[in-house]
Amino acid sequence: MTSAKFITLEGIDGAGKTTQLESLVKWLREKQVTTVVTREPGGTPLGEQLRAMLLDNAVTMHAETEALLMFAARREHLDKVIIPALAQGSWVVSDRFTDASFAYQGGGRGLQWEKLEALESWTQGLLQPDLTIYFDLPAELGQRRVSAVKARDRFEQERLDFHQRVREAYLLRARQFPQRIHVIDARQPVDAVKAAVEQLLASLFEAGSA
Amino acid sequence: MTSAKFITLEGIDGAGKTTQLESLVKWLREKQVTTVVTREPGGTPLGEQLRAMLLDNAVTMHAETEALLMFAARREHLDKVIIPALAQGSWVVSDRFTDASFAYQGGGRGLQWEKLEALESWTQGLLQPDLTIYFDLPAELGQRRVSAVKARDRFEQERLDFHQRVREAYLLRARQFPQRIHVIDARQPVDAVKAAVEQLLASLFEAGSA
Repeated sequence: MTSAKFITLEGIDGAGKTTQLESLVKWLREKQVTTVVTREPGGTPLGEQLRAMLLDNAVTMHAETEALLMFAARREHLDKVIIPALAQGSWVVSDRFTDASFAYQGGGRGLQWEKLEALESWTQGLLQPDLTIYFDLPAELGQRRVSAVKARDRFEQERLDFHQRVREAYLLRARQFPQRIHVIDARQPVDAVKAAVEQLLASLFEAGSA
Repeated sequence: MTSAKFITLEGIDGAGKTTQLESLVKWLREKQVTTVVTREPGGTPLGEQLRAMLLDNAVTMHAETEALLMFAARREHLDKVIIPALAQGSWVVSDRFTDASFAYQGGGRGLQWEKLEALESWTQGLLQPDLTIYFDLPAELGQRRVSAVKARDRFEQERLDFHQRVREAYLLRARQFPQRIHVIDARQPVDAVKAAVEQLLASLFEAGSA
């Protein structure tokens, strides 16, 4: 038996998270690992309602309001999805988690790191992902990759310097937690990124089975 | 010139807050005091959306999610309504504020006092109302007074012991902040309660004018 693991994927828009998420989940399922796939903000009915408010272009809100709503959705996500799934032995893969709050509300909006750390420990205590894969991409490239067709949400519509600050905050967070957060260069071809992801998965899987 | 004051009204359902709010605002307007009347949760478009989620009987959520949502709505309320109004010299009267979080999420739901204090200082720093009037009523009496006709919201539908814990938490909070929170016995006839409210207002008004 492999003990259940909590994996989070992080990155700016256009970094290829969605594509990699799909092949990562396929890899796990081929290994007979029961896997719950979820996302933030969202993952619960209440969280999805909050997601709609948070991404709505027509809504304006204070950066601290945004952070409190993100952590409210996260508290519910932990309570209803993540913690129960891990307790039942399922692996959990989440498209974004708390590192995104440091990147977007911290880096992007300029909220103090300490205020985010306070909310992090308030909301999740010592719980952290077992593995976080951060798909790193220069903001210019991310912006170019984001479809020009799809309407941009409240975060996607932000200017280039916002996404640059988001990226810098992700990299800072990765330097703070080098054991947990693995940085993959997302400028590489999709297959090279996929191979790097599978190497991380294999290590985690073997560590769990040992 | 009277310097702008921030007044909050607190109490369990059935304590007569709404009636007293109306006569309090009338009293202030007769004194030519520009007054903004607002409420929590709510007071902003985003806050009112959150209020609908928080009061919806069909929604279930973790007590900590509830607290984070209350403080998210409050952060927005401070930013968009309370702080700007005070800065412009208006008095602000809010039907419930942070003491209600200690009463309902702390007393009612059993959240740790320290966790609420952490959110309080995270959200509002040192900002506190100049005057809080707590209309005190035994929970049994409050429940009897709440209209049997009106559909009960997610808080109103709670059992008697919930409302008893809410009351106890309000009283604890009043003992912690005796300078700010004034307890009025809401079992008294409406006119006696009103007279007690006006006495508090007159003191605050004169202190501001001095």
